[in-house]
Amino acid sequence: MASPTPPTHPAASADDTTTIPLGQYLWARIRQLGTRSVIGVPGDFNLHFLDHIALVPGLRFVGAGNELNAAYAADGYARAASSASSDSSASPPGVLVTTHGVGELSALNGVAGAHAEHIAVVHVVGQTPRALQRSRACIHHGLSSEAPGPDHQVYAGMSEKVRIAAAKLWDVDDAPTEIDRVLAACVRGRRPVYVFLPLDLSMERVPRALLERPLDLAPPEGDAAAAAAMLDEAANAILELLGKAKKAAVFVDVLTARHGGAGAARRLIRRLGLPVFSSNMGKAIVDETDPLFVGCLNGRMGRAGVFERLQEADLVILLGDLPGDTNTGFFSRGLGDERTVFVGPFDVRINDKTYAPCPLAPLLTRLLALIPPTYTPPTPAFTPLAPAPPSPTPAPTAPLAQAHLWPLIAAQLLKPHDIVLAETGTASFGLADTLFPPHVQWHAQSYYGSIGWATGAAAGAGVAVQDGLALPQAEGGSPLVAEGRVVLVTGDGSFQLAMQEVGTMVKHGLPVVIVLVNNGGYTIERIIHGAGQAYNDINPAAYAHLLPLFRHPAPSSHYRRCSTFGELSAALKEIEAATAAATQEPSAAQETQDAGAGTERPEGARQQNVQLLELITDKLDVPWRLMETIKSIGPHKVAELEREGFAV
Amino acid sequence: MASPTPPTHPAASADDTTTIPLGQYLWARIRQLGTRSVIGVPGDFNLHFLDHIALVPGLRFVGAGNELNAAYAADGYARAASSASSDSSASPPGVLVTTHGVGELSALNGVAGAHAEHIAVVHVVGQTPRALQRSRACIHHGLSSEAPGPDHQVYAGMSEKVRIAAAKLWDVDDAPTEIDRVLAACVRGRRPVYVFLPLDLSMERVPRALLERPLDLAPPEGDAAAAAAMLDEAANAILELLGKAKKAAVFVDVLTARHGGAGAARRLIRRLGLPVFSSNMGKAIVDETDPLFVGCLNGRMGRAGVFERLQEADLVILLGDLPGDTNTGFFSRGLGDERTVFVGPFDVRINDKTYAPCPLAPLLTRLLALIPPTYTPPTPAFTPLAPAPPSPTPAPTAPLAQAHLWPLIAAQLLKPHDIVLAETGTASFGLADTLFPPHVQWHAQSYYGSIGWATGAAAGAGVAVQDGLALPQAEGGSPLVAEGRVVLVTGDGSFQLAMQEVGTMVKHGLPVVIVLVNNGGYTIERIIHGAGQAYNDINPAAYAHLLPLFRHPAPSSHYRRCSTFGELSAALKEIEAATAAATQEPSAAQETQDAGAGTERPEGARQQNVQLLELITDKLDVPWRLMETIKSIGPHKVAELEREGFAV
Ligand SMILES: Cc1ncc(C[n+]2csc(CCOP(=O)(O)OP(=O)(O)O)c2C)c(N)n1
Ligand SMILES: Cc1ncc(C[n+]2csc(CCOP(=O)(O)OP(=O)(O)O)c2C)c(N)n1
Repeated sequence: MASPTPPTHPAASADDTTTIPLGQYLWARIRQLGTRSVIGVPGDFNLHFLDHIALVPGLRFVGAGNELNAAYAADGYARAASSASSDSSASPPGVLVTTHGVGELSALNGVAGAHAEHIAVVHVVGQTPRALQRSRACIHHGLSSEAPGPDHQVYAGMSEKVRIAAAKLWDVDDAPTEIDRVLAACVRGRRPVYVFLPLDLSMERVPRALLERPLDLAPPEGDAAAAAAMLDEAANAILELLGKAKKAAVFVDVLTARHGGAGAARRLIRRLGLPVFSSNMGKAIVDETDPLFVGCLNGRMGRAGVFERLQEADLVILLGDLPGDTNTGFFSRGLGDERTVFVGPFDVRINDKTYAPCPLAPLLTRLLALIPPTYTPPTPAFTPLAPAPPSPTPAPTAPLAQAHLWPLIAAQLLKPHDIVLAETGTASFGLADTLFPPHVQWHAQSYYGSIGWATGAAAGAGVAVQDGLALPQAEGGSPLVAEGRVVLVTGDGSFQLAMQEVGTMVKHGLPVVIVLVNNGGYTIERIIHGAGQAYNDINPAAYAHLLPLFRHPAPSSHYRRCSTFGELSAALKEIEAATAAATQEPSAAQETQDAGAGTERPEGARQQNVQLLELITDKLDVPWRLMETIKSIGPHKVAELEREGFAV
Repeated sequence: MASPTPPTHPAASADDTTTIPLGQYLWARIRQLGTRSVIGVPGDFNLHFLDHIALVPGLRFVGAGNELNAAYAADGYARAASSASSDSSASPPGVLVTTHGVGELSALNGVAGAHAEHIAVVHVVGQTPRALQRSRACIHHGLSSEAPGPDHQVYAGMSEKVRIAAAKLWDVDDAPTEIDRVLAACVRGRRPVYVFLPLDLSMERVPRALLERPLDLAPPEGDAAAAAAMLDEAANAILELLGKAKKAAVFVDVLTARHGGAGAARRLIRRLGLPVFSSNMGKAIVDETDPLFVGCLNGRMGRAGVFERLQEADLVILLGDLPGDTNTGFFSRGLGDERTVFVGPFDVRINDKTYAPCPLAPLLTRLLALIPPTYTPPTPAFTPLAPAPPSPTPAPTAPLAQAHLWPLIAAQLLKPHDIVLAETGTASFGLADTLFPPHVQWHAQSYYGSIGWATGAAAGAGVAVQDGLALPQAEGGSPLVAEGRVVLVTGDGSFQLAMQEVGTMVKHGLPVVIVLVNNGGYTIERIIHGAGQAYNDINPAAYAHLLPLFRHPAPSSHYRRCSTFGELSAALKEIEAATAAATQEPSAAQETQDAGAGTERPEGARQQNVQLLELITDKLDVPWRLMETIKSIGPHKVAELEREGFAV
């Protein structure tokens, strides 16, 4: 709707090169953090400062299908970028921009997910001009229209619990400092922060020279010596326990990667030579092909023998714990205080003693440094695990079944440097259970578990790949490898919530392979309750029309639908060939990323773009690990499942 | 994800007919309010009490594409149903059901819109079981996982400002009373209320007999005599002013309809015989074919001469004022206190005096009763308005242009009992400017203005039509007419945000005509700022694939794409014929509503179902009223528009 007062453009005389608009200051600071794309949806109260994005070299705006998806995308961007730069806790945040009220509230659930799962997201909200805020004017997007008029800050209050810091900008004089403060908080805390920017304020000018002052990202409190002493104290305490242990092990959980500790963790593990376990959310932080890797566990659930090995350990160094029900097999992990060292994002806990502040990545580095040169890895004291039995490949005519589907996907679809985003649903159970090739990123929002997330996040991760941020970086900041795709694994039910984001993927030619499990609805809910109830059916869709709807340049050659294992094998081979062809010209996607949007390009042109692989499975077919989890509820549940027709 | 603890089903012995689960109690109470559909998305923490919906005769669950759309749909359901039952302030609320955290937050923006615009919506949230709440268990959908564990009630706090009442259910003993309290608050206040229902509690049992106690919907406070005296006092004060006025007029704004006063307002106006104006949001509450109707205004903006007539009045009775910028031409309405009586939803204000509590619908009824029998309508003292010049119909080969498009749509597409939902964007400016046939409902979320709303709300309005609630009702509650379609008018930009809801429309065979203005992006934003900026482009789409994607039974015969006026005329004739054919068998849609979902039905079968009319317009083409509004900003803006290529 019409912007009520034409915002003032405080005259910047043509030769005023010493000042810049505050909006530009904000984006330039964000660019300094490494971020190269701002994701969002325009609105009356941000349009003017969206212009300022183009003033910052190397930064672009990427429009999303809606604000919730934009939030998911910013989350996916941050995940992909932070896992690649595994040695830095200062990896680029995802950045989201929305408009007053309608936009910021639409995004709220996506930001909440980032909060729950420790993702660095900066949410910039365009607010109404300050004069209208002061007079409580009944401007559109207001929450009420009664006297004395709406409180324009009401929405800022509603997001308080999903952020760790907020800059409520009001005066141009302290705005730059405020911006710096919250950006640093985001990078340090790896959780969402908000920047509330009144539209008129975004156009006021600040000294350009402020941008030359480097952003101060160091931890705020305490003196350096005390901080170092704390790290030493914690590290020595851990080393002492390690010295006494007979059967020590390391358990890597997801917050290790979220707080920039993946690289240090890998080096530490190699040096210690201890067996390594991972949680399902922490999957693939340590390469699953590493000889020290024992297995991936969701509480008790995992490949046969893995949980038992974990129980043999008399000391477990638990890195980056995220102890949610869905990451601990409903708290069945069995890691009691008496044999566990909890290394959290900002503290270490050993029995009743807490070492804090003790940030994870510096601690791991310090630990590595303090290991005595004389230390030699113990001869493995663990009963070795029998190699996994080769999964029998079903006959080509056999209908797809989840028990055999996922190992095939893992072995034949996934390649090093792929970034997997797996949605809550049957698929993430199935895929988590397979063994990944090295250098694969795995992201699943298993704790917050908002469905639709993976589709939006895949778009954001694709943007990060295109920005060159989601692949291992050389010192100078350019990617070391050219490959790297996003593999979105989602059920049809979850996909329905966020499907417009395929439009963003196609428009920008993002290298996303969508693995869509079409089982006619919410299968994971069916196994929980109401297998046959209509509420677990979704709106039917014919996915052959999906890529054409979004004007994919070559829709028919990028869409494959499989009902049998024969079809799946063939499809996987074709996708492999297509990816190989496309990655021979790594910059093709980049070059045409915007130019060709909406125009038909010749079928089969060499180009990374969205691939859609639709897998038809039965609506009562679930991966075995999910079935085991549900059966563990008890005999009455098993009986219910049988009654409902599940293959128990 | 797996529900952690299998919820207990407190044994209801086979012959226990005297108690029912609390979930069933809730739905039965909602059914007593007249609601026939519950709209939402399932989740682990509501599945069990979704089963209880089926226990209530005449109530069904309708799954939406996502929770935000579900909230919009519940809003649209309430709008459609409340306008039809124009004589009752107790019309059925829209009812929305979501799951803990992820669901309720996703819906928040939609509920906020209902709050801003006075829509009765009941939001039922399935919460985690109480034991897990008490222990702050790290159950999925938690906002944090650090000690002492997440506060499960944190989300309930976040929606506090978008509701007027909440039942935070905890004890089965007082739960029924709590439910009754908030349902009554919703019906009386015509704004959202929340019911937070822990999953385990939903299965505890309450006496069935409680359902026989009628819901008490009467205003809570004060005694009846005092309330009646207040109504009399206000009514007499108004009559006194009317007696003194030389040129009185009535201005009908949207809250009149929202608070059940539409019917009373129409009768009052007829009896008073005064000229009637409406705001753009209040459009068509009084039939625009009524001889007393002068015109529809957005502040100063309207058909030539209308604003001037309004200025001639020495007394304006302003009913149901919603004084937002977008409903008052940015506060240019010129209705000063000295000549205006403000009749609000719950009070009357005359200069400095406020009469309260003074609910709108009873006041209008009382006013009507108090008009002395001797009263005769004044001979119109207003300068009559010249008839509108006939809009020249462009040549059939002329490309579509918004200036001439909307009168054609109004004249040839809209029929009595159609329910129009117009999205924020160029279209709602264009369509608001045309003259409607009688008995058309008009809904535009112009104040809250969250785009995507209209698409979701159209699905909800379609459900209400199918439920028989959105058409004039006979005493017994069955619809008086069989026709009645939903006409969704939306830009492509807004549509993108909520497009999955077309799946809901098609699955249920809802009688929705989608008028989709395809102008390559956010045109209304282009005229505000950044006409040529890439951020105002959206992801391109080829809408011919939309109905096939959602398995429309006859996609090609229900899709029309027009670039010229000739094509539009032809399309409108075809749609007219199709509607006529379909409404000859009014129950066809009803019968097949669920059966055929997902299966192809023979092309051309007689059936109300989604029609898609795609209109191609230029990306810088806007309706004249919008252009006038923007030009009024000043000469610098006019110059900017010219530079950018607009036809100023
Ligand atoms: C925003 C949101 N709404 C609802 C839910 C509840 N929920 C969790 S999983 C699920 C079903 C997922 O179905 P699908 O993606 O089709 O996967 P499937 O299990 O069928 O493979 C639902 C509805 C949720 N987690 N998040
Ligand atoms: C949820 C939400 N996000 C963003 C906006 C800002 N906004 C208002 S109108 C509009 C553009 C609408 O474009 P479209 O529907 O294509 O209509 P057009 O003006 O092009 O006809 C936008 C982005 C909003 N009002 N609500």
